[in-house]
Amino acid sequence: MNDIAHVTPTFEDVLAAAARIAPHAHATPVLRSRTLDALAGCELHLKAEHLQRAGAFKFRGACNAIWSLDEATAARGVVTHSSGNHGAALALAARTRGVACHVVVPEGAVAAKLAAIEAYGATLHRCAATIAARETRTAELQAQLGAELVHPYTDPRVIAGQGTAALELLCTPERFDAIVVPVGGGGLASGTALSVAARSPGTRLYLAEPAGAAETFASLAKGERVTGFTPDTVCDGLRGTLGEINFRMLRDHGAQVLTVEDADTVAAMRLFWQRTKQIVEPSSAVALAAVLKHGPLFAGQRVGVVLSGGNVDPDALPALFARA
Amino acid sequence: MNDIAHVTPTFEDVLAAAARIAPHAHATPVLRSRTLDALAGCELHLKAEHLQRAGAFKFRGACNAIWSLDEATAARGVVTHSSGNHGAALALAARTRGVACHVVVPEGAVAAKLAAIEAYGATLHRCAATIAARETRTAELQAQLGAELVHPYTDPRVIAGQGTAALELLCTPERFDAIVVPVGGGGLASGTALSVAARSPGTRLYLAEPAGAAETFASLAKGERVTGFTPDTVCDGLRGTLGEINFRMLRDHGAQVLTVEDADTVAAMRLFWQRTKQIVEPSSAVALAAVLKHGPLFAGQRVGVVLSGGNVDPDALPALFARA
Repeated sequence: MNDIAHVTPTFEDVLAAAARIAPHAHATPVLRSRTLDALAGCELHLKAEHLQRAGAFKFRGACNAIWSLDEATAARGVVTHSSGNHGAALALAARTRGVACHVVVPEGAVAAKLAAIEAYGATLHRCAATIAARETRTAELQAQLGAELVHPYTDPRVIAGQGTAALELLCTPERFDAIVVPVGGGGLASGTALSVAARSPGTRLYLAEPAGAAETFASLAKGERVTGFTPDTVCDGLRGTLGEINFRMLRDHGAQVLTVEDADTVAAMRLFWQRTKQIVEPSSAVALAAVLKHGPLFAGQRVGVVLSGGNVDPDALPALFARA
Repeated sequence: MNDIAHVTPTFEDVLAAAARIAPHAHATPVLRSRTLDALAGCELHLKAEHLQRAGAFKFRGACNAIWSLDEATAARGVVTHSSGNHGAALALAARTRGVACHVVVPEGAVAAKLAAIEAYGATLHRCAATIAARETRTAELQAQLGAELVHPYTDPRVIAGQGTAALELLCTPERFDAIVVPVGGGGLASGTALSVAARSPGTRLYLAEPAGAAETFASLAKGERVTGFTPDTVCDGLRGTLGEINFRMLRDHGAQVLTVEDADTVAAMRLFWQRTKQIVEPSSAVALAAVLKHGPLFAGQRVGVVLSGGNVDPDALPALFARA
């Protein structure tokens, strides 16, 4: 375990991350829609991270981690366990620096996602579909290759990188009443908290969480991290366990959680598609759904929403839409 | 029948249209994708008309027609027959000026599309699902209300308006080797020909046409307008009959037609979705598919593609993707 994993990142780290990733990551546009504003009863500013490289905000954190490595560490490569957006993001980020990237993936992972990770040049390492097998294989690769672990959401370099999305949003001339981001493991949420606290402390931070995976809601309500949930949600990017460091940062910030039913998330995804011709994945649409379902909280206000990613398999869509 | 229907528009009309619609229409972005460039073997500049108001380039022509009306004509309103993108575009354009809009729609038209037209404030007039019934009802409304007919693609004001999309593309610093646009009735195609001829005469103009509705291909090959086809294509926006004025303009320009099978169009739509998170309708994707299928024509060149619209019904998608 590397020491950095125990350091809580600060807003200075977010600023450093912004400078570090600028040559590689997109400064994504902020989308507006008259129709959505009318439906939501507020002024929505939608940070389009589905247009980020590799299709999700995850590239920010991964890129910051990769370009934070000293030369000797970089030469030994990085490793992570994720068959989703973080795996692809780390693979692409590693390629921007010519760093070897190893991704531990469980048996049964979606073939298309594995192909995407490989297409970005990473090496796949298959293991059994249990957390234990995954962690064992990852530890082996760390020991064997000296590869640096880049955890999807507890790594402070990742958290600082994810904070750059909200930083860009808050650098626009608008003064936001509220910012809404999805929460799963908590990397984006805790990074966003850093940027909000430093740049716009009067802005309320809301975390949109699937009702079928509401451990952040439970944890913040209880004042201690609650784990052991079995997630049941179409938001495949939000099924991870809230990290300890992420929990502490969100608790200390005073973030509030809005839970959202899957049917509302899918309806928001459809609506967004029809009105803006943009594909966002359910794990992004949950944030828009939260605003639409909790109208009175936002009435007449200026609201920033981070649309976290757009990686949807076209073939999975009919089943998804059947949920709405 | 109004006299204007017999006047062939010029590039001056396109310039006038650009000024006229500027306060109302979006100057849509031009999208780039490293991945698509690599797949196509050329440099693609994608004019994103799916992000135009009402979701298609049709708003340009409709808006130019509406704002070209003199006060007296405007006071009597406009009429058209289209249950598709032109109907919605004319309804929205009419609303920007407070002009009454009447849309004749056949029995059996898609309910969601009619709802969209009504939501923009137009009055629907239902008729039997034949061309004769449609034309009769339209003529009645012209006579009864004194409403001005705005034909979807033969109206010179509409053609001039559609030409503004290519005008914007050609106002970027890039020098294009080729421009590719979809062709159905020929409004966009003939408007584009005006802009290309005036602004970049060395740029080749290609028209992408579904193989199952290839009357423009047949007409230009024969040197006279061939009609009477029964269209069979998923490109619902390209099933109309090539207009006489549009045929003449395209013939005189020397435009070339590339026919595309529906399976290739749907595959291009999927690819574009996955790589850019943008939804374009099949009638747009046909142009991208034409470039991908005719690689040698464009190898190493700078190619402009007008992505004409993005109005896809999510529920229709599974059947659509089953065609690829």
